[in-house]
Amino acid sequence: MGDPAGIGPEITALAWASLQGANKPFFLIGDFDLARHHAARQGQPEPVAIARADEATSVFATALPVMPLTLPATVKTGKPDTANAPVVIASIEMAAKLVMKGQAGAMVTNPIAKAVLYDAGFAHPGHTEFLGELARGADNWQAPHGPVMMLSGGGLRVALVSVHIPLKDVVGSLNTKTIIHTAMVLDQALKYDFGIVQPRIALCGLNPHAGEDGAMGDEEIHIINPAARALRAQGISITDAQPADALFREEARSTYDAVLALYHDQGLIPVKTLDFHGGINTSLGLPFIRTSPDHGTGFAIAGKGCARADSLIAAIKAAHSMSVCRASQVS
Amino acid sequence: MGDPAGIGPEITALAWASLQGANKPFFLIGDFDLARHHAARQGQPEPVAIARADEATSVFATALPVMPLTLPATVKTGKPDTANAPVVIASIEMAAKLVMKGQAGAMVTNPIAKAVLYDAGFAHPGHTEFLGELARGADNWQAPHGPVMMLSGGGLRVALVSVHIPLKDVVGSLNTKTIIHTAMVLDQALKYDFGIVQPRIALCGLNPHAGEDGAMGDEEIHIINPAARALRAQGISITDAQPADALFREEARSTYDAVLALYHDQGLIPVKTLDFHGGINTSLGLPFIRTSPDHGTGFAIAGKGCARADSLIAAIKAAHSMSVCRASQVS
Repeated sequence: MGDPAGIGPEITALAWASLQGANKPFFLIGDFDLARHHAARQGQPEPVAIARADEATSVFATALPVMPLTLPATVKTGKPDTANAPVVIASIEMAAKLVMKGQAGAMVTNPIAKAVLYDAGFAHPGHTEFLGELARGADNWQAPHGPVMMLSGGGLRVALVSVHIPLKDVVGSLNTKTIIHTAMVLDQALKYDFGIVQPRIALCGLNPHAGEDGAMGDEEIHIINPAARALRAQGISITDAQPADALFREEARSTYDAVLALYHDQGLIPVKTLDFHGGINTSLGLPFIRTSPDHGTGFAIAGKGCARADSLIAAIKAAHSMSVCRASQVS
Repeated sequence: MGDPAGIGPEITALAWASLQGANKPFFLIGDFDLARHHAARQGQPEPVAIARADEATSVFATALPVMPLTLPATVKTGKPDTANAPVVIASIEMAAKLVMKGQAGAMVTNPIAKAVLYDAGFAHPGHTEFLGELARGADNWQAPHGPVMMLSGGGLRVALVSVHIPLKDVVGSLNTKTIIHTAMVLDQALKYDFGIVQPRIALCGLNPHAGEDGAMGDEEIHIINPAARALRAQGISITDAQPADALFREEARSTYDAVLALYHDQGLIPVKTLDFHGGINTSLGLPFIRTSPDHGTGFAIAGKGCARADSLIAAIKAAHSMSVCRASQVS
């Protein structure tokens, strides 16, 4: 669902139109009237309410299937309303329940406004951490787990060791254990959800030129490369710390399946520079597949007909392909 | 000249072949026999020794003009030799003298091996700092001066507030005064050397999402945005701190003439991701124009015929165009 006052409802309708013929069915967990409104605005058939996930497949070819959740307050496009926050949260919980029960193959989340959910008592930093909480106790999950944030776009997959922390805290938070854990989650996901038999991971250095043998910082020597050695000793194919500025060039991209970056901008700059609209976010290390568009709620442009659904469409396609891959390996 | 055991001599010959017909004459300050060797290997006419810079223009159309400096030790390709370091240094000094006297329009430096020069007693961190030293006392220079490192490539110009320091020192070294100074040097260069009447500068934030109003770091609030306000009060068109991950996307690139990045990888990742081979380095804030290819000496591939001259050629073209621009404004 995402925040109903943002661009979520309109890009969901756009995504249905785009994917309708592609045999990649999805259904919306959200307000039925809002979905009907946006379908009508886009000249689409009226959505169809469904009660069970398995009804979605047959409906999808001719209309957007909606598992309805009713919003208490009227949605004013562009103006988020705390009164609707509990239903936004409920939609996330319902999606997590359905994927954990295996009734849906993956979940895709439209953008939420954290501040609005906080006002309603939401006690998690964001979607990803909330899903990590919901995933606890899932009984079918033994792999190393996270959650770990991975961005994809422009032919790159980039997972992050640290995410939403101030840059001044990045160096202090960096340790060998966390790098090892994140790389293991990434390696597992590349095998399990992307079907890569022996994934190749490239590891970013922290300092300019990856420290140049200690001349410009020594975290590569004392923290990062020891983690890489420990990972290789466990059979994971990962490089030592590489100069991050050269690692995302076209010729280098064919030498790895994913990059492990150490902090937010190091990983997001190359993905967004190459593919701003089509980039997506994937949560690795959960007992289910979850992707999301890599943009915010877009309150400022909501309802104006200019929102682009590229990222949501890419997120749905990726979720579909990952779920097919995971299912084929389980069976 | 750069290090004679690196790829400098061969890419110089390649650059002559590429630019010969383009009316962008340059001359080499370097060893004549080495230049002759590489010209012959590439099937080019024998270079012509010149004694004065103004002879270069007429020679350039038919052969590489060389202002000769004789190396004391025989060059072994791929094996740098400290014995030759004093001549490498002399070539930089000679180039600086010629451009400061106005006998050449710009200088372009081939890559040096810092460790080799250090062994020979070179007391500067690199080319740029050495040139800053040589530039002292130039009597025709009143503008704010630096030097400031700027990378160009893939349609981007990115200047750096900090360069070759460990990431852990970036936050501590950041202050309003340095940002103001760097932005003023950049603004001046964009006007003076690039002919942009009212340059638009985009300023990177330090933290994820530029701190999100202080939620993830407060340097934007206390250090970076105050610098931007002070700059705007002086008539310089610069933004407040922007989320760095979104700033280099294609649509954003048309909204500025240059980006001011706060640390090495923040600025170099987007340039090298978009244009690894054609990216160049420009030193702003010097009383003369200086560019260089954005790569190292390439000892490992020197002499093998696979070195690419793209970056050197781009550096020479940029130096030419900047010198034409600066000359037109002075006259």
